[in-house]
Amino acid sequence: MQEALIRLSQYWADHGCAVMQPMNTEVGAGTLNPATALRVLGPEPWRVGYVEPSVRPDDSRYGDNPNRLQTHTQYQVILKPEPAKAQELYLGSLQALGIDTAAHDVRFVEDNWASPALGAWGLGWEVWLDGLEITQFTYFQQSGGLTLDPVSVEITYGMERIIMALQGVSHFKDITYTPDFSYGELFGQVEYEMSRYYLDDADIATTRTLFDSYEAEARRLIDARLPVPAHSQVLKCSQAFNVLDARGAIGTTERARAFARMRNLAHEVAKLWVERREENGFPLGVASTQQAEPAQSMDFPEIAGPATLVLEIGVEEMPPSEVERLPEALRQALRERLAQTRLGHGDITAYAAPRRLIARIEQVQPREEDYEHTVRGPRLAAAYDAENNPTKAALGFARGQGVEVSDLEQITVSGGEYVGLVRQVHGRQAAEVLAEVLGEAISGLRGEKNMRWSAPGLSFTRPIRWILALLGEQVVPFSVSTLTSDRTTQLHRFASPSSTTVVDADSLLSTLAGHGIVADATERRERILNAATTLAGEVGGVIDVDGDHGTVGEIVHLVEEPVAIRGSFDESYLKLPADILTTVMRKHQRYLPVRDQQGNLLPTFITIANGACDLDQVRAGNEAVLRARYDDAAFFYHNDLRTPPDQIKHGLEKLTFEQRLGSMADRAQRIAAIATDLTGHLDLTAEEKTTVTRAGALAKFDLASDMVIELSSLAGIMAREYARQAGEDPSVAQALFEMEQPRWATDAYPESLPGAVLALADRLDLLTGLFAIGSGPTGSSDPFGLRRAALGLTGILRTQPRLAPLSVSQLLTVAAAHQPVHGAVEAVPEAEQFITRRFEQYLIDAGHAVDVVRAVLLHADTPARAEQDATDLSQLKSESDFRELAAALQRVQRILPDGQSSTYDPALFTEPAEQALHEALTATAGKLREHTVNLREFTPIARTLIAPINEFFDSVMVMTKDPEVQANRLGLLAQVNACTAPALAWPELVWS
Amino acid sequence: MQEALIRLSQYWADHGCAVMQPMNTEVGAGTLNPATALRVLGPEPWRVGYVEPSVRPDDSRYGDNPNRLQTHTQYQVILKPEPAKAQELYLGSLQALGIDTAAHDVRFVEDNWASPALGAWGLGWEVWLDGLEITQFTYFQQSGGLTLDPVSVEITYGMERIIMALQGVSHFKDITYTPDFSYGELFGQVEYEMSRYYLDDADIATTRTLFDSYEAEARRLIDARLPVPAHSQVLKCSQAFNVLDARGAIGTTERARAFARMRNLAHEVAKLWVERREENGFPLGVASTQQAEPAQSMDFPEIAGPATLVLEIGVEEMPPSEVERLPEALRQALRERLAQTRLGHGDITAYAAPRRLIARIEQVQPREEDYEHTVRGPRLAAAYDAENNPTKAALGFARGQGVEVSDLEQITVSGGEYVGLVRQVHGRQAAEVLAEVLGEAISGLRGEKNMRWSAPGLSFTRPIRWILALLGEQVVPFSVSTLTSDRTTQLHRFASPSSTTVVDADSLLSTLAGHGIVADATERRERILNAATTLAGEVGGVIDVDGDHGTVGEIVHLVEEPVAIRGSFDESYLKLPADILTTVMRKHQRYLPVRDQQGNLLPTFITIANGACDLDQVRAGNEAVLRARYDDAAFFYHNDLRTPPDQIKHGLEKLTFEQRLGSMADRAQRIAAIATDLTGHLDLTAEEKTTVTRAGALAKFDLASDMVIELSSLAGIMAREYARQAGEDPSVAQALFEMEQPRWATDAYPESLPGAVLALADRLDLLTGLFAIGSGPTGSSDPFGLRRAALGLTGILRTQPRLAPLSVSQLLTVAAAHQPVHGAVEAVPEAEQFITRRFEQYLIDAGHAVDVVRAVLLHADTPARAEQDATDLSQLKSESDFRELAAALQRVQRILPDGQSSTYDPALFTEPAEQALHEALTATAGKLREHTVNLREFTPIARTLIAPINEFFDSVMVMTKDPEVQANRLGLLAQVNACTAPALAWPELVWS
Repeated sequence: MQEALIRLSQYWADHGCAVMQPMNTEVGAGTLNPATALRVLGPEPWRVGYVEPSVRPDDSRYGDNPNRLQTHTQYQVILKPEPAKAQELYLGSLQALGIDTAAHDVRFVEDNWASPALGAWGLGWEVWLDGLEITQFTYFQQSGGLTLDPVSVEITYGMERIIMALQGVSHFKDITYTPDFSYGELFGQVEYEMSRYYLDDADIATTRTLFDSYEAEARRLIDARLPVPAHSQVLKCSQAFNVLDARGAIGTTERARAFARMRNLAHEVAKLWVERREENGFPLGVASTQQAEPAQSMDFPEIAGPATLVLEIGVEEMPPSEVERLPEALRQALRERLAQTRLGHGDITAYAAPRRLIARIEQVQPREEDYEHTVRGPRLAAAYDAENNPTKAALGFARGQGVEVSDLEQITVSGGEYVGLVRQVHGRQAAEVLAEVLGEAISGLRGEKNMRWSAPGLSFTRPIRWILALLGEQVVPFSVSTLTSDRTTQLHRFASPSSTTVVDADSLLSTLAGHGIVADATERRERILNAATTLAGEVGGVIDVDGDHGTVGEIVHLVEEPVAIRGSFDESYLKLPADILTTVMRKHQRYLPVRDQQGNLLPTFITIANGACDLDQVRAGNEAVLRARYDDAAFFYHNDLRTPPDQIKHGLEKLTFEQRLGSMADRAQRIAAIATDLTGHLDLTAEEKTTVTRAGALAKFDLASDMVIELSSLAGIMAREYARQAGEDPSVAQALFEMEQPRWATDAYPESLPGAVLALADRLDLLTGLFAIGSGPTGSSDPFGLRRAALGLTGILRTQPRLAPLSVSQLLTVAAAHQPVHGAVEAVPEAEQFITRRFEQYLIDAGHAVDVVRAVLLHADTPARAEQDATDLSQLKSESDFRELAAALQRVQRILPDGQSSTYDPALFTEPAEQALHEALTATAGKLREHTVNLREFTPIARTLIAPINEFFDSVMVMTKDPEVQANRLGLLAQVNACTAPALAWPELVWS
Repeated sequence: MQEALIRLSQYWADHGCAVMQPMNTEVGAGTLNPATALRVLGPEPWRVGYVEPSVRPDDSRYGDNPNRLQTHTQYQVILKPEPAKAQELYLGSLQALGIDTAAHDVRFVEDNWASPALGAWGLGWEVWLDGLEITQFTYFQQSGGLTLDPVSVEITYGMERIIMALQGVSHFKDITYTPDFSYGELFGQVEYEMSRYYLDDADIATTRTLFDSYEAEARRLIDARLPVPAHSQVLKCSQAFNVLDARGAIGTTERARAFARMRNLAHEVAKLWVERREENGFPLGVASTQQAEPAQSMDFPEIAGPATLVLEIGVEEMPPSEVERLPEALRQALRERLAQTRLGHGDITAYAAPRRLIARIEQVQPREEDYEHTVRGPRLAAAYDAENNPTKAALGFARGQGVEVSDLEQITVSGGEYVGLVRQVHGRQAAEVLAEVLGEAISGLRGEKNMRWSAPGLSFTRPIRWILALLGEQVVPFSVSTLTSDRTTQLHRFASPSSTTVVDADSLLSTLAGHGIVADATERRERILNAATTLAGEVGGVIDVDGDHGTVGEIVHLVEEPVAIRGSFDESYLKLPADILTTVMRKHQRYLPVRDQQGNLLPTFITIANGACDLDQVRAGNEAVLRARYDDAAFFYHNDLRTPPDQIKHGLEKLTFEQRLGSMADRAQRIAAIATDLTGHLDLTAEEKTTVTRAGALAKFDLASDMVIELSSLAGIMAREYARQAGEDPSVAQALFEMEQPRWATDAYPESLPGAVLALADRLDLLTGLFAIGSGPTGSSDPFGLRRAALGLTGILRTQPRLAPLSVSQLLTVAAAHQPVHGAVEAVPEAEQFITRRFEQYLIDAGHAVDVVRAVLLHADTPARAEQDATDLSQLKSESDFRELAAALQRVQRILPDGQSSTYDPALFTEPAEQALHEALTATAGKLREHTVNLREFTPIARTLIAPINEFFDSVMVMTKDPEVQANRLGLLAQVNACTAPALAWPELVWS
C-alpha cells in the first residue's frame, strides 16, 4: 500500500503537482486541507497532490467492519485550472499504480458533490474499476460560498479500497501494508482505541468546550485578518463537532446551529483568503484563462446538392438522465434555430451515448432560398416636390441606403404609398448558415444541472471536449469558445487508435459502430437485453426486466460499447432477504439479477462493461466488489437484528430532516400524529386502527438502521424485514413497508389501508412542512422530492377506494396543524396548487387530452373522482349528443357576464322557449346537483337540456333592450349553469 | 524539495521501512509521532519512515529569518532493533538523494539528545555534510521514562537545510520546492500568518483552557486504558503549551508545573502502551535479540618467540573527549588485567582515532611462566596419628585433591607446619591468556556516558562494530557478545575497498597509514597544524593556536585522515565583532580562523575534512555554511541592537534556570544581590561600587538576546558589545563580560574588580543554589557545570589580589542567604568540601606534588594563600634545613596523642632540653603565629626551633613513667605544634 502512495506522489509530481503533506490537525477529508480548501479560491494556478488520512469519527467500528475505518487514507489531487485532459491524466495515474486500464472496465459514473457546510459543490463522477468505486472526480464549482474561477479538478483516491481490490483481500486488516506487515497488524489497535474514543470515551462536556474555544479563536483570527490560522481553527471546530456527533451528543437544533456557525466561518475565511492573496499580489501568478478562439474569417465550403449534416458534440461522461434527455433537446434546438433561417432541410434525428451527443439532419439544401428584402423610405408624397424632384427626405434615404435616388421605387405598404428599395437577397451557403446555427445550438445547450470549465461562455452538464460537424464530405467550420469543429471523433479511451477521422456525414454512425460504439440508445438497449438474456439462459435463468426499476435504462446510458459479463456470488448470500441482494445489485452496482423460472434469485449477476476488456479480470473484479458489498450488507443485517426496532428508532434523533422542521424523529412523530388524525375521518376496523397506531410508533425507524444508512433505497423493505423478525404483527410490518410506497414513478401503491394512511401522512407532512417554510421546489431543484410526494399523494387517493372521498385540501389542513412552524395553514393553498399541477401532469402523461384534463381538474381536490371523470370524458367526447350538450352549455357560459345572479322570475317570460327551458331545468335540477359527482351519470340527465337550450338561443333574444327582461333571461341561463358547471369545466372542452 | 522527500520515502521503503504519514495533530518533532514515541517501546520490531512538518511556535519569525520557520520539514526514520549498519544505511540514503558521499566531507559529530519532558534520551551524532548539520542520528536509550530494549536508531533529516545546501540558496524562501514554485511562493503567507498567530494573536485564556481540557482528556483516556488517543491528547497539550510559551504567557513556576504534568502523562501513556501491546500479543512479533556468539572451543595459535600484540576495537564515531581519554584507560585496563596473569610482556601503548581504539603490547612472551601451586591441608600434627598413620583428616584432604595420601608433602605456612600439596602449574599459551584478557578488557570498557545497542552485555560510548586482535601473525581468537575477533580493519567509509586485512600485529599502524588513517593523535595534531599553517601562510596569515580554546584538540579527535582545506568568506562580514566571527568558526564549525601578522582576522578559514574528497566541492559547501551562519549572526546582531539591554533582559524571565531555583531572571537578580553584599566586605571606590551596581542590574541580560540564544558561547562577549553600543559606561560593559570569565579551563580571569566581584557572585549563586537543592554533580553528570564553577571561584580568588583575603566559606554563607529554598546555609559545608576537592585537583594539575598539595590544603579556604604556599613549598622542599624543620615538626606531631592539651608548667621541667625548647618557643611563638599566613616568612623563624626540638627528643624521655612529667612534656610539644601546625599540614610532607 505504501508503494502505491509513493507511486501516486511520483506520478503527480511528474505532472506538475506540488507534493504536500497531510493537514496537521484532524480533517474529515482531503478537501478540507488548506491545499485544497483555500487554494482552489482565487485566480492563482495550483497543482497539488497529497495523502490525507481522513478522520470520520462516525465511521468508527472498532476495526471490526471490513470496509469502514475511523481513519481512511485518501490521496488527493487538485488541478487548477482544469487542464482539459484531467480524465486522461487520471487514467495515467492508474497505469502508474500498475493497473492495466485496457484490461479493466473503467467507468466514470455520475456523482456530484456538495458540502452545504462548506458552501461548496461540484459536478463529476465516481470512477469505477470493475464495479468498484475507487475515486471521486469532481469539477469544483464553488467553495466557501464563492464561485470558483478558474474551475479546479479534484481527484480523490480511496486508497484502502483500491489496494483491497488490487490485492484481492476482503477486509482492510488483510491489506499488505508493507512487505512485512498487514494493515491490521499496523493499525488494528489504533482503529480499536480511536473507535473507543470517538464512540464511547470522548468527554462530551470537554469536547463542547473545545468546539466553543476553536470557534472563538477562529472568529478572532478572522478579525485579525489571518485566514490561514483561522482555517485551522475551523477544522478543529469541525473535528470537535464530529466527535460530539459520534458520541451521540448532537441534537437537531444544535446540529443546525453548529452547521450554520461553521459555514459562516468557512465563508469568511474563504473571502479573507482571496483578499489576502490579492494584497500579496497573487504570489503564484494568475491563471491565464483560456481564450475563446478568435473568430476567423472562415472559408465555407460549397456543396453541389442536398447533403446530410452530422453534428457530434463530444462530452465527458454525461449523467444517464442527460444522455436520455438531451437528444430531443438538441433536436428541438436545431429545428427551432433552422426555422429562423431560410435553409431547407429534411428530418432531424438525434442520439446520445455517454460521451457524445449526435444530431443528423437529412437533405440539407446547398443554400438558403433567395428572397426580396424591402426597405421603406419616406411617403411618396414627401419624396418628390411639385417639380417631381426628389426632396431632401428622398435624397437622405437614398444616401443612407447607399444607392442613387434613381434606384428608389414606389412601394405600397398597408395601403400607403412610399418610396423604397427592394433588394434581392441571396441565400447564404448552407455551411455558413449551419456554422451559425450549430454554434448557437451548442452554446445554448444546457443540462438539468450545469457546470463551468475552462471554456469561457459555455455551461453544460459536463465539459464539452470536441466538435465534429460534417456536411456531406465537408467540415462545417466554426468555433465555440475554445473549441473548433473538425472531422475527428474520439473512440473508446483505451482503443488503439483512440480517435479517428470521419469521411462524411453519412458514415459517422457506421464509423463509430466499426469501432464498437453504439450511438443509438435503442440499439444499445436491445443489445444489452439480448446479451444478458443469452448469458442468463446459459445458467437456466432469466433477466427480471419487469422488476428492473430502470436499471437497464441507466446502464444503456452508462456505456457506449456494451459488453455483457456474467458473474456469480456465493450461494450462502442467498440467505439474506432477496430485496437486499437485488437492491445492492441494481442500485449500487447496476448489475442485472438473474432469477430461475420460479422467480427465485440465482447466485448470478450480469454486469455490462464498457468496451473490450479482459473478461476474466473484470468478472473477478466485479465478483469481489459484490462479495464485499454483501459482506457489508450481511454485517449490517445481523447487526441491526440485534437491536429491537423501538431502539433503532432512537437513532432518528441524530438524523436531521430540515433545520426548522426538526430531526427525522420529529418528522416520524408527526407522521404518526397525522395518521391518527386521519383515522378520525375514516371508518377503520379496530385491527386497522391498532395497526396504524403501532406502525406509526415505529414509522421510519429503519432509516436509523445500519443497513438503510448504507443502502438508503432499502428504506421500507428493511422496516418490514426487521419488524417481522422482531415479532411485530404482519400487518404492522406490511404497513411500515407500504408507507414508503410509491418509491419511484412505476412503483406500486399501498394495498392495505393502514399502509395507505401512513403513506398519506408521510407525504402530507413533507408537503405541508416544506411549503410552510417556503421551501417548495424551484426550477430543477427539488431536494426533498416534493414532486414525487405530490404525485404519490394523489396516487394513493386515486388507488385506495376507501380513501377516495378525502379531499386534498382537507388533508393538507389536518397535516398543517402538526407543523412546528407558524404559517403552515396559510401555506396550504400553495401546496394544494402545487399538487394540482402535478396531478394535471400525471393525467396528461397518462394519455388524456389536454382539454379533457383541464375540464376535469375542477375535481382535482378528489383525485379519484377527477381521474374517473377524465376516463369517462375521453370516451364521452366521441359521442355526438355529448358534444351537443357541451356545445349548449358552453354557449350558456359564454353569454353570462361575470357576477350574473342566477335568480329569475318566470312571470317575466315572454317567449315559449323561455318557459320550456325553465320547465326542463326544473325537472332535472335536483338530479343534476345530485350527480355532479359522477360525469357518466350526469350526462344522460343533462342531455334533456340540449334541445331547450338550443331552442332558447334560437328563438329568444337574450340581450333585449328591456333591462328587466334581459336580466331575467340571463338569470335563467345562470341557473342552468349553476346546475351543470360543477360537473365539469365545460368551457375547456375542444373539438378539432 | 518534494522530489527529495519522495526519494527518501522510496529509499527507506526499499530498506524495509513502513511509510507512514505525519501526525494529524501539531507536533514539535517527528519523535512525538506515535510511530516513534510509542513504537520504540516494547519488544516489537519496527521500521518506519515519514515526513513530519514540525511545528515550533517559538521559532516563528514571520518568514523573515532565512533559516528559522514556525514549521520545518523533518524526515524521520526509526530502525528497531538497531541493525548494526544504520550508519551505512543512512549514507546510502544520502546517495539516494543524489549526494556523492565520496566527494563530500561527511562526518558524524557527537551530539546527544535528551528530552526531560518526554523522559527520553539517546546518544548519537549530528551528521555534517561539508560542515552543515543535515541530520540528527540517535541511538534511543529511553523513552517515556522506560528503558528501551531493543534499542532503536532514530534518523531525523532537516529537509530545508539539506535542500538549501543542495540547491545552494541562502534563504528558505528561495528553495525550489516544485519545478514551478519556490518555498516562499508556496509557504510565505503561511509562515507570516502562523507566526502572527503564535507570537501575537493566539488568545492566551483560550489556549490555557485548551491545555487543561487536553490534559483532562488524556488523564481520562489513560484511566480508560486507551494509550493511542491519550497520546494524541498529550501532543495537543504540548502544542498548547508551546503556543502559550511563544506568546510569552508561561512563567517559571507554570513552566515547571506544566512540564511535570506532561512528563507524567507521557510516562503513563508509555507504560500503558507496552501493557496493551502485550495484551494484544505483540502483533508485530518480538524482535529476536541478537545472541552473543556461543563460546566455542577455540584453537589458540602458538607462537615461537616473543611477539607484538595489537588490538583494534572498531567503534562508531566516538566523542572527541573519549578519543582523548580512552587510550590511557585501555592501556591501564590491559596492564592491570595482564598483571593478574603470569604472561610476560613489554610496553603497552594505546592510540585512538574517532572510529578505533588501538592497543599495542610489545614483547608478549609465548606463554605464561610455569609456577608451583601450593594447597594447604590439615596441620601436620593432626595429619598423622601416633603411629604415623594418616588421620581421617589427611585422608580426606588427599581424596579431596584427587591424590594419594602418599603424595602429600610437609609444608610451612606462616611458620606453621602443615601437610599439603605442591603442584607444578604450566603457564597457558599467550593467545589463550590474551583472549581472556582482551575480551574482559573490551567488556569492561566504559565511556563517560554509555549506551546499549544490539550487543547484549556491552555498554560503551558508541557501538563497537569490530575487533581486530593479532599476536604476531596470528589472530587471537575470542568473542565478546556478538563480536568475534579477526584480522580485518575498516578503512575510510568511502575508500575502495573500505576494509582490509592486516598481515601481522606490527603492520596495523602502517597498514592504516597506507590507507590514509593516522591512528596516533599526536601525529594527527602535527599534521593538522602543519597543513593549516602552510595554507594560512599562502594568504599571508597565521593560525591563532594560542587563542584556540581547544578547537585543534577537538578536530584532532574528529578526523582519522585530516585533509586541510582553506576557504574564504566575504570581507563585509569582518564588520561584525571579531569574537562573533571566531566563535562561529571555532565552536560551531570547528574551523581555524586565520589572522594577519598584526592579529587582525583575515576573511579566511581553514577546515579539516576527514579523508579524500572533492576539495572544491567541500570548500564551497563549507563556505556556504559559514555564509549562512554569518548571515544569521548579522541578523541577530542587528536585531538585538534595536533593543536596549534593560529590555532584552526581560527575556530572562522566560528562560528556566532550575525548577526550584526559578528563572534566569531570578538568578540574575540574586547575582546582583550577592555582588552587592560582597562589596560590603571589600574596600571599593565609589566608581567601582557604581559599576557593580549597574552591571549587576544588567547581569546576564545577553542570555536573552537572539545572538546568545543561538550562539551560547558568545555569552558575555555580546553583553559587553551590546552594553557598549547602548552607551553604558565602559567599566560596566567590561564587568558584564568579565563576570562570565573564566568560560573554559584556559580562559582568562576577570581583571577589573567589579568584574571579579560579579563573576564570584555568579559562581557562588550557582554552587550554593544547586547544593542547597541536593543537585551537586554525581559521577560524570554535571549538567550545571559546577566543577567549572568551583574552579572558577577559587581561580578568581587566586588571581584578584584585592579579593584574596575573602574566605570561601564566608562567601558561600553570604550567597546561601539569597537562595529561595530552605537548607541553603546547611549545605554550605558540602559545597565547600566540593570546592576544596576541585582546588586540590587544580593544584595537582598545576604540577605540584601530591604531598605538597595535601600539605597546603589546610588553607584551601583562602586559595591565594594556599597556592602561594604550594609554590613556596615546592621550592622549600629541596632545602635541607626545611627538611630538617619538617622532620622535627613531624616528630612532634607523631608523638602527640589526640586531644593533648597544649599547657605546660616550666616548673615541672627536669631536663635542660625542656628548658631550651621552652625558651626557643617563647622567643618565636608571637612571630610564628603572625606568619602562619605565609610559609616563606614562617620558615626562617621556625627554623630556630629545629635544634631545640631535636635536642629535646634526643635527651628527654617524653613517655616517662611519671604521669605529671609526661603530661607536662607533651604539653610543651603540643604548644610547639600549636604554633607551627596552622602554617602547614606538616605530616603530609614526604621525601623520597
